[in-house]
Amino acid sequence: MCGVIGVWGCAEAANLAYLGLHALQHRGQEGAGIVSSDGRQLHLERGQGLVADVFGRRDVFDRLPGRRAIGHVRYSTAGSNSLVNVQPLTVQLGGGFAIGHNGNLVNAGTLRKELQDEGAIFQTSSDTEVIVHLIARSRQRSLLNRVIDALGRIRGAWSLVMMTPERLIAGRDPLGFRPLVLGRRPGGGYILASESSALDLIEATFVRDIEPGEIVVIDDDGLTSFHPFPKAGRAACIFEHLYFARPDTALWGQDVYGVRMKLGERLAIEQPADVDMVVPVPDSGVAAALGYAQKLQIPFQLGLVRNHYVGRSFIEPSQQIRDFGVKLKLNPVPTLLKGKHVVVVDDSLVRGTTCRKIVRMLRKAGVESVHLRIAAPPTTGPCWYGIDTPTRAELIAANNEVAEIGRFVGADSIGYLSVDGMHAAVADGSPVEGHCDACFTGRYPVPHDDLERRDQLGLFET
Amino acid sequence: MCGVIGVWGCAEAANLAYLGLHALQHRGQEGAGIVSSDGRQLHLERGQGLVADVFGRRDVFDRLPGRRAIGHVRYSTAGSNSLVNVQPLTVQLGGGFAIGHNGNLVNAGTLRKELQDEGAIFQTSSDTEVIVHLIARSRQRSLLNRVIDALGRIRGAWSLVMMTPERLIAGRDPLGFRPLVLGRRPGGGYILASESSALDLIEATFVRDIEPGEIVVIDDDGLTSFHPFPKAGRAACIFEHLYFARPDTALWGQDVYGVRMKLGERLAIEQPADVDMVVPVPDSGVAAALGYAQKLQIPFQLGLVRNHYVGRSFIEPSQQIRDFGVKLKLNPVPTLLKGKHVVVVDDSLVRGTTCRKIVRMLRKAGVESVHLRIAAPPTTGPCWYGIDTPTRAELIAANNEVAEIGRFVGADSIGYLSVDGMHAAVADGSPVEGHCDACFTGRYPVPHDDLERRDQLGLFET
Amino acid sequence: MCGVIGVWGCAEAANLAYLGLHALQHRGQEGAGIVSSDGRQLHLERGQGLVADVFGRRDVFDRLPGRRAIGHVRYSTAGSNSLVNVQPLTVQLGGGFAIGHNGNLVNAGTLRKELQDEGAIFQTSSDTEVIVHLIARSRQRSLLNRVIDALGRIRGAWSLVMMTPERLIAGRDPLGFRPLVLGRRPGGGYILASESSALDLIEATFVRDIEPGEIVVIDDDGLTSFHPFPKAGRAACIFEHLYFARPDTALWGQDVYGVRMKLGERLAIEQPADVDMVVPVPDSGVAAALGYAQKLQIPFQLGLVRNHYVGRSFIEPSQQIRDFGVKLKLNPVPTLLKGKHVVVVDDSLVRGTTCRKIVRMLRKAGVESVHLRIAAPPTTGPCWYGIDTPTRAELIAANNEVAEIGRFVGADSIGYLSVDGMHAAVADGSPVEGHCDACFTGRYPVPHDDLERRDQLGLFET
Amino acid sequence: MCGVIGVWGCAEAANLAYLGLHALQHRGQEGAGIVSSDGRQLHLERGQGLVADVFGRRDVFDRLPGRRAIGHVRYSTAGSNSLVNVQPLTVQLGGGFAIGHNGNLVNAGTLRKELQDEGAIFQTSSDTEVIVHLIARSRQRSLLNRVIDALGRIRGAWSLVMMTPERLIAGRDPLGFRPLVLGRRPGGGYILASESSALDLIEATFVRDIEPGEIVVIDDDGLTSFHPFPKAGRAACIFEHLYFARPDTALWGQDVYGVRMKLGERLAIEQPADVDMVVPVPDSGVAAALGYAQKLQIPFQLGLVRNHYVGRSFIEPSQQIRDFGVKLKLNPVPTLLKGKHVVVVDDSLVRGTTCRKIVRMLRKAGVESVHLRIAAPPTTGPCWYGIDTPTRAELIAANNEVAEIGRFVGADSIGYLSVDGMHAAVADGSPVEGHCDACFTGRYPVPHDDLERRDQLGLFET
Repeated sequence: MCGVIGVWGCAEAANLAYLGLHALQHRGQEGAGIVSSDGRQLHLERGQGLVADVFGRRDVFDRLPGRRAIGHVRYSTAGSNSLVNVQPLTVQLGGGFAIGHNGNLVNAGTLRKELQDEGAIFQTSSDTEVIVHLIARSRQRSLLNRVIDALGRIRGAWSLVMMTPERLIAGRDPLGFRPLVLGRRPGGGYILASESSALDLIEATFVRDIEPGEIVVIDDDGLTSFHPFPKAGRAACIFEHLYFARPDTALWGQDVYGVRMKLGERLAIEQPADVDMVVPVPDSGVAAALGYAQKLQIPFQLGLVRNHYVGRSFIEPSQQIRDFGVKLKLNPVPTLLKGKHVVVVDDSLVRGTTCRKIVRMLRKAGVESVHLRIAAPPTTGPCWYGIDTPTRAELIAANNEVAEIGRFVGADSIGYLSVDGMHAAVADGSPVEGHCDACFTGRYPVPHDDLERRDQLGLFET
Repeated sequence: MCGVIGVWGCAEAANLAYLGLHALQHRGQEGAGIVSSDGRQLHLERGQGLVADVFGRRDVFDRLPGRRAIGHVRYSTAGSNSLVNVQPLTVQLGGGFAIGHNGNLVNAGTLRKELQDEGAIFQTSSDTEVIVHLIARSRQRSLLNRVIDALGRIRGAWSLVMMTPERLIAGRDPLGFRPLVLGRRPGGGYILASESSALDLIEATFVRDIEPGEIVVIDDDGLTSFHPFPKAGRAACIFEHLYFARPDTALWGQDVYGVRMKLGERLAIEQPADVDMVVPVPDSGVAAALGYAQKLQIPFQLGLVRNHYVGRSFIEPSQQIRDFGVKLKLNPVPTLLKGKHVVVVDDSLVRGTTCRKIVRMLRKAGVESVHLRIAAPPTTGPCWYGIDTPTRAELIAANNEVAEIGRFVGADSIGYLSVDGMHAAVADGSPVEGHCDACFTGRYPVPHDDLERRDQLGLFET
Repeated sequence: MCGVIGVWGCAEAANLAYLGLHALQHRGQEGAGIVSSDGRQLHLERGQGLVADVFGRRDVFDRLPGRRAIGHVRYSTAGSNSLVNVQPLTVQLGGGFAIGHNGNLVNAGTLRKELQDEGAIFQTSSDTEVIVHLIARSRQRSLLNRVIDALGRIRGAWSLVMMTPERLIAGRDPLGFRPLVLGRRPGGGYILASESSALDLIEATFVRDIEPGEIVVIDDDGLTSFHPFPKAGRAACIFEHLYFARPDTALWGQDVYGVRMKLGERLAIEQPADVDMVVPVPDSGVAAALGYAQKLQIPFQLGLVRNHYVGRSFIEPSQQIRDFGVKLKLNPVPTLLKGKHVVVVDDSLVRGTTCRKIVRMLRKAGVESVHLRIAAPPTTGPCWYGIDTPTRAELIAANNEVAEIGRFVGADSIGYLSVDGMHAAVADGSPVEGHCDACFTGRYPVPHDDLERRDQLGLFET
Repeated sequence: MCGVIGVWGCAEAANLAYLGLHALQHRGQEGAGIVSSDGRQLHLERGQGLVADVFGRRDVFDRLPGRRAIGHVRYSTAGSNSLVNVQPLTVQLGGGFAIGHNGNLVNAGTLRKELQDEGAIFQTSSDTEVIVHLIARSRQRSLLNRVIDALGRIRGAWSLVMMTPERLIAGRDPLGFRPLVLGRRPGGGYILASESSALDLIEATFVRDIEPGEIVVIDDDGLTSFHPFPKAGRAACIFEHLYFARPDTALWGQDVYGVRMKLGERLAIEQPADVDMVVPVPDSGVAAALGYAQKLQIPFQLGLVRNHYVGRSFIEPSQQIRDFGVKLKLNPVPTLLKGKHVVVVDDSLVRGTTCRKIVRMLRKAGVESVHLRIAAPPTTGPCWYGIDTPTRAELIAANNEVAEIGRFVGADSIGYLSVDGMHAAVADGSPVEGHCDACFTGRYPVPHDDLERRDQLGLFET
């Protein structure tokens, strides 16, 4: 996953981009970058690590002048974990061109090979460099037409922000996998962001979603909207609702917190349990657990305390750090739990290893019985569109029956939400017609050119 | 506030100390240090910033050999915010001596002056250096007797861990202001820590609290306990229960989470409200809000979402960062809150500025009415014993009636817990006879030599 | 200027490359990089600053495995001063491709434009990226033929080292502007280096110069030499002899130290002076001053002491640092100089500003008269082939008569070496037929496509 | 060794102190620090490494306000190599007190023990902290009297600069081991510095040496001089002339460069050689080699080229780095040396290991015969007064006859200067009556309390 931000026509644009990226930090913790434009030239600052680390020194904004900026937080889906892959990617195209990308392409490998055969050279292993090459090689004249030409050749998930010294271009893929919203600042500037919560932080007003297949161009003449691609259905990523987006985000017309509560309520109906208390896995399982508890009238308790000085577990790249992270991150409240029958609610179950440790931790704390409830269906397939789920071999539900999973994690009982239940909860009042649920159902809306993992392309360690 | 850890007789002692400090990170974020002993010599590593930053490089533990270690996380109460004040403090006393201190002394200024008149030189502005000078100047022969001699001369709050190459010494002041617990590792080593949650992280078993006035010495002969000071009542800091300690900590025989729920229940009885939902200020108000909501059977909702990539607001030293922090840290869930009548529960109200911003944020999100409930009495006086409350002039409740406070923060109604209600909630099953409630009542159990702020002693900027 | 190194078939190849770069540090102080190959994959480490800073941490070599490596020290001639321009440049061409370049191209701007029109995208402003694009776009099949195809299209000065996981390729331009030597390690490996002094440091034996227009390929079958380009005369940079190369380097069959002494002897014959002592500007003027003093039998004295903790003045990019540098770097020995008539010998005179300060410093130290002697002709034109001389506007001799220069610097007399005298000194026993003396004579052996400064291409500040 | 600087009554005092320390960098490369005073308070910045590294960021001077400053460069003689030992040392004595020390005390161990018995605590292992404790414990009333009282109790070598917010105090020990000079800035301020070359850099005029046993106090009333200690002869360190001081320094009335030339001339008379050329070991042997060559009318050649990107070998703390350093630092000029008979001149011979490598290097370069000439007598004893000579066991001349030394280093012949010859060269026109030559003669002017190495006191690794 990644997050993008665009700022147009605002004083201290880079600083606003920085704040926006801060609100999007949960979408990528491995690197961050900002490119600003002073109208004549682009200026780039980027680095590995958290937004606050990369942009920690105040003077960094002196090197990012201008009233226009785009920014990016990176979570290494495709492309190895190195500085050279941190976005925005800047190239000497015209008077300067910068691009930030959220999503994954399914034909990047094929296109990369074609381009290399034609003499293109790649300095990174990211999908984004493929897009830039396509733009550079387009026979179209205007930059906008070259961008549209290039975007017409890629398949998969892309929410993009691009900038030249004079222009900001943004767009979403025709199926609308990833979110991208438009807002306005009180003074009149435009903001583009992966999530509405980034608008809130910088006191911008939500205007609307960028539509699937829409390309917007913002320059001194204001915003112009284009719809160059034919309609092709919808494939809004349902996992954004279940786990990825912030609970305070308004996603495709619904508030994520409310959707998660409804998922918990559905889960309560489908998989009830007769226990003393409902305990969420913080923080991702909290809203679903609240819905579960309220529906069944069971006391809700924060029986697992999170250490806030450690980041989100799902997002770290190496298994070793993840394991250590669980230990550092969660601690049970022993007096509360001792001798109790407990339902533990989590948002989803991927490998099962973290969950297993939690169950063990709870038993050690004296819990009488642990009943696991997952506010999502079993995750049976990897995501090809930008969520960093592991390979099929590592997905516990791709290789085991539910009962086996329960035994593996050591729970007294286990219950998943059904696919229908999930859709009912999400669709309840949703204006989005179709969601992508491929990771739960195997119904991939866009086929992948090859099934190899993309990160095998990484050639250089930096 | 600060946090201390001691490790004795464990492989990779410094690494265990590091993990323990991680669990105590909420007690101090400005600096961290570890001193290890290999039996012949002490080894020191320390730095400014978070534990993970200071000890981020793996090779740091190569420079901290041995099976014994003490550690400290610092929050600058007395002594300016600079590297030289980061603890443990190490001096060349005997074969080497290191000390880490949680608490504040009320006669440090007087003692410092006396010592300076006798020719002592101070390199820091911390209370802790006073203790070391007293130990060095004691006429007693054995180190233990010199330590006891020195501790007999200081007044105020102190939970201490000290180490020589061969010995670990720890102790609590006779009134027992700050916590200090003893645990054992599976393999047989001893752990001392400010909070029991640090024991949990490193898989040590809680044995007991170090008693008020008790001094323990751990060496190759095991642990020996001394009670050199006369009994003088009890003054366990009630604010540890209300705010400071982690909810998963077992504090003086009670679990903090449970106490906070009871505070919320009492608050519900004393200050009920007829609203649509109860929303805590995360994370400190969560347990009290749960108690409040359950007692009144009102839905509990996490209507304010916290950005987990920013630290705890109370603990930053400069007002400017704090202001910025509120904005970066909390965001309302608009759809949930719109048109609703809401009770907001927080653990305490110090300056009122953060609360005011929250109320404003909620109104902007469309909340119909905001009713503020504080799970503590009005904070009317500063703490002289180690909690970094601001000066009286900045304490809103020291200078205003409750109704005025309500108007300042902009709430539709405001309600505090009574002092009696607080004691009832905390004492409910508590084995501790007396708590210090000076910040709420002005009943200071130990008078202060001078009422000036201690940090005026800071002479050097480093 | 820049310096390159190549290591093939040696244990700890990256460490040898590091030591070699250390010996070449005088050729570039702004950045350094090493790419190693373990036979399957390339590994890159690079950074801004001195070699010792970039490779200061021992563990850096753990990330550079393999028995093959190339390295580069950078001095920003073309391309702005930023990390992205630090070489070797690595791209995903075939199984990985890295390149390090010493020299400057005269048709890089033209080629860049052509390539961009064809859709090539540039991420840096360096000439080297142009070469890589030409290689990538060549219609030839084998990598070697593509490299030769590309090199046939560039004009100007290039001494190159290139590496794929399996192969090291190196070459010099047909006119042989810049040096490149071949050596062998005792154990049998090959070394390529800009100067022979780098061979000495790593105990390699000098084998021969790479010939102008020669391309060598080193792989598991050993070294193969190619001469794909027609002979076109010679243009060995005479300024390498005068200033740039280390005095202990054997350059094109002559030792630089000996050439510099001969330049001083010639200068003594052409521009004698009747003085008490000869004082060199350290360190570049020392050998010429020795020759001058010995020829005229005047005492040689190190009357200007250099502070060795500051780098070489010519090589810093900003004028402000250079000014400050003179003050920090040189100090006269007052007792030695007081009341004396002194000849000051320097290797060349570029802007005249440093020299002016030296004269002023000497007068302040009580020198009776200062006679300036320059062991080179007046510098009247910029270099287009890789020496970072300033623009014509800044070259004092491009805009002033010799007498005016003498007045500007404040010397009692001034004398330059003649162009013929310079050639006589350099050619004395030299096996090189022709030297490039364009900066002194305006006879540019290869015309430049445009006369603009190349660094105006820099688009991004990083 | 160390170097000190004091600045009084000058705008940008800290910046001047920085430049002065730069000129004194050769006296200590392990750490640097500056304390400034704004008249009310002291401000400290210090760090490990070179002056340019510690004070590399421009904003550091914003944290060092005021028109008064003292500074220090550190070379770890006594006290282990760690940040806590970097000077100036600052303590909370009165309104703040800072001290920088060049020299070594012979009774520091005894005094430290006495002070510790009285209850003093030491945070560093440096001699300087002993002085501060003595000042703090003095029964005198005024600070000046307390300082004099303390200095009366220490024995050994001390050139000191001390500062309170209102006052700068400086002084030299009664035997005058180490230099300390007084200068004035054009605008009227005072400068104190270890060497006159530091005055030159900051355009201050040399006024006079601080006399042995003199204490000067500079405050708003100007400079006052005190001579509180009885005269006790003179013991100016002769090794300052031979090696330590910069050649452009005026030391005790003589210029160091001239003294070194005379040492070379004397060496030529005592130990002539019939060779083709004289080659110095750069840079310390250059002036002596010039004197040697001129006296015997043999050509002087810089046959060993130094890499200026590596520091001075004598000054690094660990043997391992020193060995590596020789290899990186010197390279012979092969063409010049091949087949020649050569005299190599160095300033002194300590361990013999570097010299041995040089001889080997020269032979490898084809030198026919190598004759070693040392412009000093055999070094037979360690220095107790501040020069970091190794222990007796490591001093080659303390354990071997001259002929054996010659065999060890591999020279065809070896010749040392006689003690009388050394004194004749140094005393030639010298106003200093007596020099300390203990390292050559064993005549120690002040006995040492114990013969153990002081650095064994180091307790903490930081």
